[in-house]
Amino acid sequence: MRDAYIIGAGQTPFGATPDRSYRSLFTSAVAAAVDSVPNGIGDDEIDEAIVGSLGVGGRQLGLSGPAATEHAGLHGIPSSRIENACAASGYAVRQAVQAVKSGMADVALGGGVEIMTDMSSDVTKYWLGVSGETEWERLTGTTFAGVYAQMASTYLDQYEATQEHLSMIAVKNHENGAKNPNAHLGFECSLEDAVSAPVVADPLNLYHCCPTSDGAAAVLVASEDVVDEYTDDPIHVAGVGAASERVGLFQRDDYAGIASSEKAGEKAYEDAGITPDDIDFAEIHDCFAIAELLAYEDLSFCERGQAHRLLDEGVTELDGERPVNASGGLKSKGHPIGATGAGQIAEAFKQLSGKAGDRQVADPKYGLTHNVGGSGGAAVVHVLEREGAE
Amino acid sequence: MRDAYIIGAGQTPFGATPDRSYRSLFTSAVAAAVDSVPNGIGDDEIDEAIVGSLGVGGRQLGLSGPAATEHAGLHGIPSSRIENACAASGYAVRQAVQAVKSGMADVALGGGVEIMTDMSSDVTKYWLGVSGETEWERLTGTTFAGVYAQMASTYLDQYEATQEHLSMIAVKNHENGAKNPNAHLGFECSLEDAVSAPVVADPLNLYHCCPTSDGAAAVLVASEDVVDEYTDDPIHVAGVGAASERVGLFQRDDYAGIASSEKAGEKAYEDAGITPDDIDFAEIHDCFAIAELLAYEDLSFCERGQAHRLLDEGVTELDGERPVNASGGLKSKGHPIGATGAGQIAEAFKQLSGKAGDRQVADPKYGLTHNVGGSGGAAVVHVLEREGAE
Repeated sequence: MRDAYIIGAGQTPFGATPDRSYRSLFTSAVAAAVDSVPNGIGDDEIDEAIVGSLGVGGRQLGLSGPAATEHAGLHGIPSSRIENACAASGYAVRQAVQAVKSGMADVALGGGVEIMTDMSSDVTKYWLGVSGETEWERLTGTTFAGVYAQMASTYLDQYEATQEHLSMIAVKNHENGAKNPNAHLGFECSLEDAVSAPVVADPLNLYHCCPTSDGAAAVLVASEDVVDEYTDDPIHVAGVGAASERVGLFQRDDYAGIASSEKAGEKAYEDAGITPDDIDFAEIHDCFAIAELLAYEDLSFCERGQAHRLLDEGVTELDGERPVNASGGLKSKGHPIGATGAGQIAEAFKQLSGKAGDRQVADPKYGLTHNVGGSGGAAVVHVLEREGAE
Repeated sequence: MRDAYIIGAGQTPFGATPDRSYRSLFTSAVAAAVDSVPNGIGDDEIDEAIVGSLGVGGRQLGLSGPAATEHAGLHGIPSSRIENACAASGYAVRQAVQAVKSGMADVALGGGVEIMTDMSSDVTKYWLGVSGETEWERLTGTTFAGVYAQMASTYLDQYEATQEHLSMIAVKNHENGAKNPNAHLGFECSLEDAVSAPVVADPLNLYHCCPTSDGAAAVLVASEDVVDEYTDDPIHVAGVGAASERVGLFQRDDYAGIASSEKAGEKAYEDAGITPDDIDFAEIHDCFAIAELLAYEDLSFCERGQAHRLLDEGVTELDGERPVNASGGLKSKGHPIGATGAGQIAEAFKQLSGKAGDRQVADPKYGLTHNVGGSGGAAVVHVLEREGAE
């Protein structure tokens, strides 16, 4: 099968831009991706597009793939929308990789878009709720923060981590996000603030929860046959893993880990022929602070129950051994549902290309992105490799 | 790139079964597909699943891919939902083909499900409307029948076809559907009835419009490397074409044809290395009778403006030279949005396997399926080939 490479990737700033349409945002992201291709690319060289979106707000629930791509100058090509809740565009990029590997496209675009701030928070809550299990979670009143709070309670009860470790994640990610001009909440926060914020769903407080954001992101994937036309510094899609898990938390055996993340990670490492130790940095799905802690373990960055030690030892800080969420993560960079996964890959592309500015990770070779749908009903992991790097 | 084969396909009866959940319907379709695999297949041999659905009714708008597959015994595998309005599961099967050709799956399942009859018709109308262009079609009050009526007016005005030809399509498709135990409206209708039915959106009357249905369908696609384990009579995916078009009708140059269908057909013929003349039968997206007429021309079954002659000459009847919609089509078999495209492929699989009972087409080698999203914003065409046939 053909190898796949990322030749360009970009995003809009994530934030509150309720005056912009989904088409306008998506078009800006495509333009940013096109602009980032080192040797340039024409619109007519993109063979296929997959647009990730949950469709929050219900603007264009049908055919929103073609509706977005026609506006972005990609009229006529195969275009569809993929939905996997918050993992929509991680899956969109994976599907672009499949399109390229299958030989059915030489260059495919995987991206995503979401608008969440132009409606009342009750409506937003409804839309977030639709990614929970409908009959036994959403309709019984369980919010998303509530679902993750159950996971956090279990984890904190079972292991040595404390609520303060959750706050340390907020502090780290805000410190990184403050260096990212595309971040929604691009300010630093003190540990004191992050510890004393109002409770949302115990044990999670406000600083343990990411914001709801608007934004779009796009990634261009090319086959080994054409990659040289577009770049002299290709970023190899070394591994891709994806998996599903029971959508409703109540149907799972274990709340202190996400099986789909673990499975997706194992598959991505296997594809890439590496071990977790080879990963130089990661963008991790921290919709809630507990999610980042669980992912450290699900992705085998440490043993079960040891995630808090990575924080205590500064391993995942920007200047640590394995920086996590250099972009600011969902917590600070923002979380426009359908755009998040592609946005993570745009960040990894930037880091591996050495273009991440003040938040640049030192000389990375392998970067990992980890995108989760809902409370883990879906997960997708990409391992990207800068082939020229040592 | 690896060749892809259909090793099994099945569907639920299409109809009004508002007492069944989307999970129950999807599970039945997967079971039917699994049962149809000549040498059998275990659930654990299915590597990936893609579920097409518009999500009518909004039951499980997020993560409905994993929510459906976990219930169908496919827990843990990569699973996602694809949406392209009424073409959702045609695209789902195409994506299953990509998954297999990419080498990322040996066996992939593409299917779809929709429930449309458990709500008031006003709610159904809203959900159908979401596949129109939101700002300039849906919100200005244009219904789907209205959009196709504009196409029909243009076509009837421009060429020699008459309103009676639209009714002849209804008569033909009901005659076929009456032989299909899975048909929603499995009764015959007279030309007199089909001509004199009440007007829905002039020039389209009730018999020129398909019903709204519940149902699910599933297709199993296998790679050339493993196909022999599952069947001695493989159905080759000889060609696949897909394309998009302006979602809003008002943005198109021509109302008397659908550019995305034309482009998708050309690509599928090119892939298969055949001409339209080689097609022995077709399942065509006749959401409205005019759509079948336009497709005859878009798919080059005849010259522009000549579609009515195929009807006058009986070419597309069950015992004609090239039967179209032997299943009954959307008109009689039914149209559960997200299940329709995979349902067409399930019919083509049955026909090519010689298992279509009373509606069996004589000795087919090439079958074509044509699935359209909305009024043509998306289209996807598959050409299937029975390799053993002459």
